[in-house]
Amino acid sequence: MLHDLFPPGIQHALDLAGIFVFATAGALLAVRKNFDVFGIAVLALVTALGGGLFRDLVIGAVPPAAFGELSFFVTPLVAAAIVYFLHPEVQRINHAINVFDAAGLGLFCVTGTTKAYEYGLGLTASAALGVTTAVGGGVVRDVLVNEVPSLLRDREMYAVPALVGASMVAIFISMHALNGITTGLAIVTTFVLRLLAMRYHWRAPLAWNRRSSVAEEP
Amino acid sequence: MLHDLFPPGIQHALDLAGIFVFATAGALLAVRKNFDVFGIAVLALVTALGGGLFRDLVIGAVPPAAFGELSFFVTPLVAAAIVYFLHPEVQRINHAINVFDAAGLGLFCVTGTTKAYEYGLGLTASAALGVTTAVGGGVVRDVLVNEVPSLLRDREMYAVPALVGASMVAIFISMHALNGITTGLAIVTTFVLRLLAMRYHWRAPLAWNRRSSVAEEP
Amino acid sequence: MLHDLFPPGIQHALDLAGIFVFATAGALLAVRKNFDVFGIAVLALVTALGGGLFRDLVIGAVPPAAFGELSFFVTPLVAAAIVYFLHPEVQRINHAINVFDAAGLGLFCVTGTTKAYEYGLGLTASAALGVTTAVGGGVVRDVLVNEVPSLLRDREMYAVPALVGASMVAIFISMHALNGITTGLAIVTTFVLRLLAMRYHWRAPLAWNRRSSVAEEP
Repeated sequence: MLHDLFPPGIQHALDLAGIFVFATAGALLAVRKNFDVFGIAVLALVTALGGGLFRDLVIGAVPPAAFGELSFFVTPLVAAAIVYFLHPEVQRINHAINVFDAAGLGLFCVTGTTKAYEYGLGLTASAALGVTTAVGGGVVRDVLVNEVPSLLRDREMYAVPALVGASMVAIFISMHALNGITTGLAIVTTFVLRLLAMRYHWRAPLAWNRRSSVAEEP
Repeated sequence: MLHDLFPPGIQHALDLAGIFVFATAGALLAVRKNFDVFGIAVLALVTALGGGLFRDLVIGAVPPAAFGELSFFVTPLVAAAIVYFLHPEVQRINHAINVFDAAGLGLFCVTGTTKAYEYGLGLTASAALGVTTAVGGGVVRDVLVNEVPSLLRDREMYAVPALVGASMVAIFISMHALNGITTGLAIVTTFVLRLLAMRYHWRAPLAWNRRSSVAEEP
Repeated sequence: MLHDLFPPGIQHALDLAGIFVFATAGALLAVRKNFDVFGIAVLALVTALGGGLFRDLVIGAVPPAAFGELSFFVTPLVAAAIVYFLHPEVQRINHAINVFDAAGLGLFCVTGTTKAYEYGLGLTASAALGVTTAVGGGVVRDVLVNEVPSLLRDREMYAVPALVGASMVAIFISMHALNGITTGLAIVTTFVLRLLAMRYHWRAPLAWNRRSSVAEEP
């Protein structure tokens, strides 16, 4: 029942779209860091495939899709090649990238939650792993370029939309109401929440009574 | 024979206590770094569950307990919530935290070694994985906040007590003498050694003939 | 057919040689960073075993050889002990270390690709995982000492020789021509390419039209 939420071809196309936009974001960061062509390819691969790889190791789906599905491996390399040659143009459309990234976030948190549940995890654990799938690649990317993951530092409400989307999927599953429409609803909700968070600069709260004057780091 | 070292309820309570104190330490670091509420939760989860997650992936126990046991997931979130609201009070009892952390170290290295042996690893590998279980979460935590893991840098004798405790368990197993009493002895030995190392500022030696004047980093 | 490319004893000796030189490189970095004796041991272990550990988790070979094979665990500790006492002498033969490291790179990318294929991965995925096996330990090492992995930053053509060697193995497999001689050829090609890259300071290209004046980092 959980399988075939979408016709397989559409599911696969959506997966590739998510991988492509995440890879593009990783490759652009590599260019900004002045990495060479191989560093660009590595960062594209890690950003696009890191979250799903972690999910597959946790649920015991070996070999992980990142190594079992050739198109998952080639797509980030295509994104890296495009960025390699066209990076000024790609940076100019940075806003478009952010929109695609928000779409990837919605897709990955929903498919990650569903796949985790299919492999026998509980609902809470499935949602948690769905969020991890969506944000994990970006965390590894930031660690590799020696920065505190923006997820932790930026107060940018990046994880919250994914948390909402993954929780919606878990609730739909528990109500036996997960189907193509409700899945799409969770993806769109995540996507729109993330766009709103960017548009209106929503910020997550610091610790209670935490004043910036006591901050260790300015 | 190796199972049921303690009645399951007590084993579970000890696990949760270890998870709780490690999560508290992670959450406090997140507050010091001025992370938002989600960063605090993530760092609490990673610190408390990272070591056990790595152990379970290595021994093939999927899904790892971190994702299979709901209480293991909720406990760090409770610790994060407490730190979120009460962090000045929690920091004031920092010494108490260190004592709890030492207890967590003892518990995790012992249960990690035992679980690894139950899954078929050799005695040396089991002890090594037990130490990794105990210190792994802290290493991931430090990497995420972009610091050299204190395990590597601080010369604080953090790993040595865990090494002693894990080795005791391995020796007891090889002598067919692992039971509730000897397990408790290994936990207490680790705990006391760690407290003594903190109390008397024991320092691990640098490389032979290494003078600070040749240090790359001051 | 893929098994027994070499007599098992020779295969094992080659594995240990690769582990030994990678561990030495890790331990030397730990000395430069002024880590204590335990930090030296940890960095030696991580550098030597990290790549193979990742490979084994991906292909589902649990417990990974790093924890299943005692000699794989002891060898890095021996290397760490030697560096601990003799580090000035070892640093003096730094060039020799680089030569050994190049040999380790050739060996690990070839054995990594072969093992991945034996566990059912496709040819492209096997080659990718072979490269990851060869460079993975160094990446984890650099992350732990809080540096951008030299693989990404140095433009040193470290991954390219491994890529060539792993691809040669994949091509030989697809031609049913993998045997002791062709395996040796792939190892030697990787080794020589890496030596040439060091000798003639080959540099990988930056992104197309990327001028250093626009670099974010000097």
